[in-house]
Amino acid sequence: MPSNLRRITGGVNAAHGFSSATTACGIKRTGPLRSDLSLVASDTPAAAAGVFTTNLVKAAPVLLSRRHLENGKASAVVLNSGNANACTGEPGMRAAEVMANAAALALDVPVDEVLICSTGRIGVQLPLPKILPGIETAAWSLQATPAAATNAAKSIMTSDSVPKQSAYEVSVGKQRFRIGGMAKGAGMISPNMATMLCVITTDAAVSPAFLKKSLGEVVGKTFNCITVDGDCSTNDTVIVLANASSDVAIKSAVDKKAFQDALHSVCADLSRAIVADGEGTSRVIELTVKGARSASDAHLIARAIANSQLVKCAWAGGDPNWGRILDAAGYAGAPFDPDKVEITYDGLKAAEKGMGCQDAKGESRLRKIAAKKEFSVVVDLHGGKGEARLLTTDLTEDYVRLNLTEFSL
Amino acid sequence: MPSNLRRITGGVNAAHGFSSATTACGIKRTGPLRSDLSLVASDTPAAAAGVFTTNLVKAAPVLLSRRHLENGKASAVVLNSGNANACTGEPGMRAAEVMANAAALALDVPVDEVLICSTGRIGVQLPLPKILPGIETAAWSLQATPAAATNAAKSIMTSDSVPKQSAYEVSVGKQRFRIGGMAKGAGMISPNMATMLCVITTDAAVSPAFLKKSLGEVVGKTFNCITVDGDCSTNDTVIVLANASSDVAIKSAVDKKAFQDALHSVCADLSRAIVADGEGTSRVIELTVKGARSASDAHLIARAIANSQLVKCAWAGGDPNWGRILDAAGYAGAPFDPDKVEITYDGLKAAEKGMGCQDAKGESRLRKIAAKKEFSVVVDLHGGKGEARLLTTDLTEDYVRLNLTEFSL
Repeated sequence: MPSNLRRITGGVNAAHGFSSATTACGIKRTGPLRSDLSLVASDTPAAAAGVFTTNLVKAAPVLLSRRHLENGKASAVVLNSGNANACTGEPGMRAAEVMANAAALALDVPVDEVLICSTGRIGVQLPLPKILPGIETAAWSLQATPAAATNAAKSIMTSDSVPKQSAYEVSVGKQRFRIGGMAKGAGMISPNMATMLCVITTDAAVSPAFLKKSLGEVVGKTFNCITVDGDCSTNDTVIVLANASSDVAIKSAVDKKAFQDALHSVCADLSRAIVADGEGTSRVIELTVKGARSASDAHLIARAIANSQLVKCAWAGGDPNWGRILDAAGYAGAPFDPDKVEITYDGLKAAEKGMGCQDAKGESRLRKIAAKKEFSVVVDLHGGKGEARLLTTDLTEDYVRLNLTEFSL
Repeated sequence: MPSNLRRITGGVNAAHGFSSATTACGIKRTGPLRSDLSLVASDTPAAAAGVFTTNLVKAAPVLLSRRHLENGKASAVVLNSGNANACTGEPGMRAAEVMANAAALALDVPVDEVLICSTGRIGVQLPLPKILPGIETAAWSLQATPAAATNAAKSIMTSDSVPKQSAYEVSVGKQRFRIGGMAKGAGMISPNMATMLCVITTDAAVSPAFLKKSLGEVVGKTFNCITVDGDCSTNDTVIVLANASSDVAIKSAVDKKAFQDALHSVCADLSRAIVADGEGTSRVIELTVKGARSASDAHLIARAIANSQLVKCAWAGGDPNWGRILDAAGYAGAPFDPDKVEITYDGLKAAEKGMGCQDAKGESRLRKIAAKKEFSVVVDLHGGKGEARLLTTDLTEDYVRLNLTEFSL
C-alpha cells in the first residue's frame, strides 16, 4: 500500500459531505421485517461515474442509472435489496423511474442526479406502495455517521453474511481527502461483475471524465477479477461519487496516481470481501495464470480453471488436484503446450512439464496447503508473457444448499 | 424409432464375431480388488473409426488410438479404469504403447490394430507390471456371451453407478445385422465429450470412410449434446468397429440410412444413460433453445444455461427459476432481445416477453413440473431459426460430496 494511504474505519460516510439512511419497507418476502432500502446522498452535486453488468439482460435500475450518468454527475443513490427489478419489462422500468422521482422530490435535486440500484429476486415487480414511503422516510433521516454507513452496508445484503465496507484517508502534499465505500455480493459472482452492488464516495474534486476512466481501469483489476460461481448477474453496478468537499483537486499526475491508488485499494478490499463471503465457500484461492501467449489467453484459461466445478470441488475437499486444473486449462480455448505446464500451490511445485513431480512426502505437504483457508495457485504455461490473476473460491455442498431456491431471499 | 430397428439385449458382443473378457489387475488404488481391465476383440480385422476429446490436454491412450486408427481398421480395444494415463508425459506414452504391444502379441494381430482407452485418475503412471499379465489373461478368456459383455461394461465403470449398454438388430431387405455398445461416464461430462469411453461393435460391412463420417455426425447429435458439469476430459473416446461378420454390406442409400439410424440409436441410448447416471444428480432436463440467430448461437446459449451453477442448483431444488435461466442466456455471448424471450417447462409458459406470466396457481403447477425426475425446458428467443438441444442435469450436494477428492477412484 502506498505510504500516502491510511486505512480508516467507515464506508460511504467516511468522506465529508456524504450521508446515508436506511428503512425497512418489507420488500424481502419472508422472515422478520429487515432493513431493505438505503439512501446515500451528497450535500452537493457530485461528479459521478458507473460501471455496469455486461449481461445482455440488464435490470431496469441498471438502464436508468446508466442513462442518468450521462451528465457525469449525481446527488444520491437509492438502493434496495430483496427484489432485483430485473426481467420486469416496461412496468419495471417505470418503477425505477418512480423511485428516482420520489428521491429527487424528497431531496430537492434533479431527477437525473438520482441513481438506482436493486438486488434480489429476478422477475418480480417491485412493491412500489411499500417502497415510496420508505424513500421519503430515508430522505428525512439522513445521517453522516459511521453507524449510518454501516446500516446502509447491512441494508443492501441479501445472501451476504457480513457487511462490506472500506475507507482510506489520502495525503496529497499537505492536504488530505477521503474515499470509502460499501458493497454487497456473495453469489452470482463472476468476472464482468456479478449480483453485486458497490457505492464509493470521495470528497476529492475529480473531473467526471477522469473519474470514469479511473473507475473503468480499477474495476478491470478488482471486481472483474473475482469469481465465485461464474454467473454474471443482471444488476451488477459500481458507482463512484466525488463531491469536492475536501477542496483537494485531483489535477497533477502525482495526485491522479494517488487518487487511483486509493480507488484501487477500496475496490480491492471490497472485491476480496465479496469472495471471502462467497456463498457457502470455505476457501479463497488467488489464482495466477502466467506464461500465456497473451493476457487475454491467460484470462480465458484462468476463468476456465476458476469456474470448473471439478476444480472447485477438489479445493473444497482440500485436494491439491493439479490434474483437474490442467484439464480445465485444456478446454479453455487458448493454445498452450501441455508438456511445459508448471503448477504450484503456495510456491510448492505440484506439477512440472505437465506431470506430477512430488513423492508421497511432497504430496502430503501439498495437501496441507490445499487444506488452508487461503492459498495461492500459480499455473505457468511457459509459452509467453501473458498473465492474469483471479480471486476465486471452492464449491461446497453449502453453496448448493443455499441456492436450491430463491424463495428465501 | 425406425421400424427396421429392433432393440435387443446385449452390448459389445451383440454383433457376431466379437468377444470380450475382463480381469482385475489392481489398478484401482483402494477398496476390494475389482475388475478394472477389459478387452474387446473382433474375430477378423474390422473397419474402425473414433472420435476423441477436443481438450488440448490429451491422454496418452487418446494419442495412440488416434494414430492407430489412421489405417481405418482395428482388431481389439483394451480398456482400463482407475487410471487415465493422462498428464503422464513420455513414460505414459510408452506405457500405452507397451499395453498395445502386449495385446497384439497375445491376440496375434498387428500392433496398429489395437486401440487403448483409459479412464480414472489423471497424473499417475500406469502400474504396467499389474496390467500386462492382466491383458495376457484377458486374451485367453475371451467369450462372445452377453454376460462377458456386461462384465466389460462393469469393468470400465469409475464413478458410474450402473453399467451402460445398448444393442439393436437391424433389418435391411431380407438380411439382418447387429450393432451394440457400452459406455462409461458420470462426471466431467460436457459437450465435446467427457470422461467418457464408448466402444460400439457391428457385424455390418461398412467402409472405413463411411464409418468415420457416420460416427462424426452421430456423436455431434448425441454425446456432444449432453452435459453434467461442463468439464471436458482428457480421455473422451468413442470407437466403432465394423467386422462384416453378417455379410450385410452397407452400400445403397437406404442401407446407409438404416446403419446411421442404428448407430444413432445406440449412441443416443448410451449418452442418455450417462446423463441419467450423472454424479449425484437427481433430475434429467431436456433443454431446447430455439429462435436464435443461428444454430451456433443457440448452442452457446444452451451451454451457458446448462452449465450455470445457479440454474442447476435451482433445478436441484425443484425451483422453476426462469430468471436464472434468462440471466445465464444473457451472459452466453450471443445476441438476442431479452424482451422477446419465452420460457416453458413441459410446455407450460413460465415467462413470456422476458417477464414472468403466471399467477400463484400457475407457479404452483410450474413447481410440480420442476420437481419431477425428468422434464423439458424450452427457451424461445423469437429472433431467428437457430435451434439447439442438450440433455443436462441438476447440481446437487451429492455431486459436490462425490467430487471433493479423487482419492477413492
